Amino acid sequence: MNKIACLDLEGVLVPEIWIGVADRTGIKELRATTRDISDYSELMRMRLSVCDQNGLTLQDISEVISKMLPLQGAEEFLSWLRERFQVVILSDTFYQFAYPLMKQLNFPALFCHNLEVDDSGRITDFKLRMKDQKKQAVKAFHSLGFQVIAVGDSYNDTSMLSEADKGILYCPPQNVIDEFPQFLITKDYIELRAAFS
Amino acid sequence: MNKIACLDLEGVLVPEIWIGVADRTGIKELRATTRDISDYSELMRMRLSVCDQNGLTLQDISEVISKMLPLQGAEEFLSWLRERFQVVILSDTFYQFAYPLMKQLNFPALFCHNLEVDDSGRITDFKLRMKDQKKQAVKAFHSLGFQVIAVGDSYNDTSMLSEADKGILYCPPQNVIDEFPQFLITKDYIELRAAFS
Repeated sequence: MNKIACLDLEGVLVPEIWIGVADRTGIKELRATTRDISDYSELMRMRLSVCDQNGLTLQDISEVISKMLPLQGAEEFLSWLRERFQVVILSDTFYQFAYPLMKQLNFPALFCHNLEVDDSGRITDFKLRMKDQKKQAVKAFHSLGFQVIAVGDSYNDTSMLSEADKGILYCPPQNVIDEFPQFLITKDYIELRAAFS
Repeated sequence: MNKIACLDLEGVLVPEIWIGVADRTGIKELRATTRDISDYSELMRMRLSVCDQNGLTLQDISEVISKMLPLQGAEEFLSWLRERFQVVILSDTFYQFAYPLMKQLNFPALFCHNLEVDDSGRITDFKLRMKDQKKQAVKAFHSLGFQVIAVGDSYNDTSMLSEADKGILYCPPQNVIDEFPQFLITKDYIELRAAFS
């Protein structure tokens, strides 16, 4: 029972947030991901600059996100998991964006990052809480005597998966499958439950 | 938003579990607390020995605990808190005992300890996950870049409260109030909400 399940958020429990914002606002530049701009900070600076150019405030983006839904079956899967493991969501998104989705998931503990917002609602900056925070969180849980089972969908999860006692990929792209054959691959919540059982 | 609320469980969100078991089974020895036997491991050995003498299995105790309720207003307070902070419950109880109460609190993340149980349901031993785990958890959250606000009710919470950025006592006994004047004292969930606001 001394086991913590660490789950990535986007792609595992909820859709990619920025893709959703891009689709709903029609701003194509916001579809860019780390596959297009590999440095996350650079990508975020571009995104915030595009928001600025289009006059998108935090409130505008939050309204868009609040219309998004968790992935189908995610809430049931997470409820099942929380009865059996301690769960901490490890994500590189921002608390302000995640809020409407975490509400729909009944507020599991979330470790992510913060936006800086001025009085007009303009997002002025972002603060990454620490470098490689997903991997560092797994290390910290190990130091507290926990075993860790980690689930992620993409490249930026692989250091967390490597650090964990068991690393599970959920619906990963082919290049991640090819490059990390050591991780179990799951393609739906039934397979993911089985991997935890 | 990089803030974690660390809450003790018994006395803050739920009643004292062993007192409840003592009252419901009529076994007076199980009312003993660390005020009677200050060493927690010694106290636990006595409790398990008394359970053995009375033929109390884990299932028997779980059934008793499943009839207990969180403290009045605890669920509402915790829901309020989880919308505003990341919450981790730090408790020196055991996962097997806490389960029925955590279910009623919608499964917040819980860091506690484990019982060893044989096939017949007899509790054969207990394993403390680590020494001073509450304080160590606060240290680990600090190392991950979080600020920590901790809430506890008693002596065994004070090292966690000291380690936290803000330590709050909830309905503490007078000797703890006298010995630890540095901590804010709260006497109901309204005051506790105010302390977090």
